[in-house]
Amino acid sequence: MTVISPLIDKLITALRQLPGVGQKTAQRMAFQLLERNREGALSLADALQQACQRVGRCQRCRTFSETDICRLCEDVRRQDSGLLCVVETPADVLAIEQTSQYQGLYFVLMGHLSPLDGIGPEDIGLDNLAERFAGGAINEVILATNPTVEGEATAHYIADIARQYRVKASRIAHGVPVGGELEYVDQTTLTHAFSGRKSLE
Amino acid sequence: MTVISPLIDKLITALRQLPGVGQKTAQRMAFQLLERNREGALSLADALQQACQRVGRCQRCRTFSETDICRLCEDVRRQDSGLLCVVETPADVLAIEQTSQYQGLYFVLMGHLSPLDGIGPEDIGLDNLAERFAGGAINEVILATNPTVEGEATAHYIADIARQYRVKASRIAHGVPVGGELEYVDQTTLTHAFSGRKSLE
Ligand SMILES: [Zn+2]
Ligand SMILES: [Zn+2]
Repeated sequence: MTVISPLIDKLITALRQLPGVGQKTAQRMAFQLLERNREGALSLADALQQACQRVGRCQRCRTFSETDICRLCEDVRRQDSGLLCVVETPADVLAIEQTSQYQGLYFVLMGHLSPLDGIGPEDIGLDNLAERFAGGAINEVILATNPTVEGEATAHYIADIARQYRVKASRIAHGVPVGGELEYVDQTTLTHAFSGRKSLE
Repeated sequence: MTVISPLIDKLITALRQLPGVGQKTAQRMAFQLLERNREGALSLADALQQACQRVGRCQRCRTFSETDICRLCEDVRRQDSGLLCVVETPADVLAIEQTSQYQGLYFVLMGHLSPLDGIGPEDIGLDNLAERFAGGAINEVILATNPTVEGEATAHYIADIARQYRVKASRIAHGVPVGGELEYVDQTTLTHAFSGRKSLE
């Protein structure tokens, strides 16, 4: 339905691509940008294009990165820590970084094991992860997958691999609400979850 | 604070330009777009640029339009209605159009009288509106400014002008919550507000 302008209709439709944005919110966003903040709208357009075109994946930890190796992987102090934290998504890395409590490396699965959906170990990079364990620089892998059925299963699967390479495996404490998603947890809870981590057998 | 990638940080900052979007929501939007919907993100970038570059103002009613005269002003049936509805913003036009009850023309103030902010009659196009009244094609002006102090004052100011040109002035009924903003009102309430309009004076 075109009411005022096809371009505004197109903008409203495009804004609904954003998670959690329905028709009314998209309308409000479109009009507010056009009325009061066209400069902000153009900077958003530019940021979207730049990010989509130039953000790829770190070759070492698989997180989003605009360089071959991300800043976290290139940090010598993190490399020397001997700690590797396994998470499901880049958003989880950001959530953990914002606690400022963890100073080790990451490995980002970009998902979790899900046999019913045909997602096996290689789809989430576990062959690469095994190579990292074999490399000998990792003393402890901290399993920070989501506290869901799939996240738990993935954590235990990785703990089994770690055991083969004599790498200690730990799971973040269940201070995080079971069934929830890691990136929504507040920083204090996440900090406690890290400090209260337990060795996985 | 750059954590993962300067481009992702820039995207998160840019997403916060959207009304009602805070840091956590912006992060979630950025990661979801990059992980699952880069095509949608690029179409949003394109829609933002097109709208910012090509959406101007209708020369007749002042609403947003990508043509000199908007579709509503060019509609002969609306021209023949003799009805002109005055609203504060283009978003209000859309809200009223979505009720499908009103078939007349619009005039968009792009604000309201606000002497303390230095916004006088000409800043909201009342000189143009007087010319419309003088033209003789308008039988009734429906004042649909917001039910706020400034909106009421603006409505009464316009009613005085209409009286000089013997144009009937009416105010939409206060089915709309006083102190609220028109564009948030549900369609049923807005429909009642239109049908229950009262002659001013
Ligand atoms: Zn990396
Ligand atoms: Zn128009």
